[in-house]
Amino acid sequence: MKNFKLTIEYDGTNYFGWQRQGSSKKFPTVQGAIEKCMRRIFKKNVSLIGSGRTDTGVHAQGQVANFKVDTRLTSLEIQKALNAYLPDDILIKEVVNVSSLFHARYGVKNKWYRYTILNSNLPSVLQRNYILNYPYNLDISIMKKASKYFRGKHDFSKIGCIRYKNSVREIYNLEVNKKGRFIYIDVTGNGFLYKMVRRIVGMLIDVGRGKIDILDIKKIFSNSNFNYSVQTVKACGLCLMKVEY
Amino acid sequence: MKNFKLTIEYDGTNYFGWQRQGSSKKFPTVQGAIEKCMRRIFKKNVSLIGSGRTDTGVHAQGQVANFKVDTRLTSLEIQKALNAYLPDDILIKEVVNVSSLFHARYGVKNKWYRYTILNSNLPSVLQRNYILNYPYNLDISIMKKASKYFRGKHDFSKIGCIRYKNSVREIYNLEVNKKGRFIYIDVTGNGFLYKMVRRIVGMLIDVGRGKIDILDIKKIFSNSNFNYSVQTVKACGLCLMKVEY
Repeated sequence: MKNFKLTIEYDGTNYFGWQRQGSSKKFPTVQGAIEKCMRRIFKKNVSLIGSGRTDTGVHAQGQVANFKVDTRLTSLEIQKALNAYLPDDILIKEVVNVSSLFHARYGVKNKWYRYTILNSNLPSVLQRNYILNYPYNLDISIMKKASKYFRGKHDFSKIGCIRYKNSVREIYNLEVNKKGRFIYIDVTGNGFLYKMVRRIVGMLIDVGRGKIDILDIKKIFSNSNFNYSVQTVKACGLCLMKVEY
Repeated sequence: MKNFKLTIEYDGTNYFGWQRQGSSKKFPTVQGAIEKCMRRIFKKNVSLIGSGRTDTGVHAQGQVANFKVDTRLTSLEIQKALNAYLPDDILIKEVVNVSSLFHARYGVKNKWYRYTILNSNLPSVLQRNYILNYPYNLDISIMKKASKYFRGKHDFSKIGCIRYKNSVREIYNLEVNKKGRFIYIDVTGNGFLYKMVRRIVGMLIDVGRGKIDILDIKKIFSNSNFNYSVQTVKACGLCLMKVEY
């Protein structure tokens, strides 16, 4: 059996996220679309292990997945065959034949997500599926300062992220940068809960608007009684940029 | 009667171009979509005059149009009402109440089109509808030099543009710029024939690939017997940026 690692770019607009679920016609997913092409290539079911889910509407420039299969095809042949069959909103950027020990989910060291805000009173039509349009003034310098209060280990159930076994995650880095009318929020961490990045961005927007104070972030993570309802910003502004192993 | 000037951004992906034609269900057009909303607002048919057509799949950041109507609504109210009814791939960026003499087509002084090439062996999924992906090396310095041979008045039937009464058009400026993996070709002129920008870009690509020589451009425009078949590059890389009056 060979083990292949895929790097995948996709436009999440027309998918119910990464993970296969129920009827692939009713709920098309990126994983489902790639597995369907693998069936055509390998003439049997091969399951694809992703680095993790991405939600409905979320994009990826560097999702990673792996699968094991007996084949004579080379990495490049598999890449070409997959790209020939895949719809044009999914692209296999790279296929590498890796050690049998490589596991796309268990081996993750860190993931980098980017959230993009268009901070303008005029929305963008051409980028509407890839940004959050936010028309009100945001204080970037305060958002930058706030970013350090997210770094480190936190219990993200405190900001309403659904709790699995363990809702503590570590944020290695969080940066807020403005370039023209665009604000980029880059978050790197060892793992992310459902809606976690989008709720961090929701809090940063509230800080930038003056709705909450920088120090409130500290309170929210330490004090479960802090009364504050975190907004989950739109999925389409989010993109999984890179997964490292 | 008041005369209103609209500035319009649209994503041409799902439209048969700007201009209304036949059944609006079978052939949805941007003009048709806006006129439909105007019917809802003004309770009657009002016709919209565009600065000119854009082809199927071509985008606009600054298309201009005007219409005349008897109404008590202000410019801002009309803008808000139109944007409330329009689908999210069309945006009215501005509405101005102008002199009754303003005519969006006859008054055009110049138009600026931008063509975007992603010069990379890896296509972009997220920008697939807004660029031409071109995987081969292009010599930008030669393309920059070639650009001056397009400036000035030329008979564009020589490069196969469909001839109306008169196929002579004047190019005021043409610039080729590279930024990272993107090449931007900006063309300004007094008017453009069907497929004209896309054929100019096709020639520039041939120059950048070394398929034709810089001086061949001069020959092509002067000598109708020059044997060269101009390619029309994909519509989706093209965007109407601005129309000036």
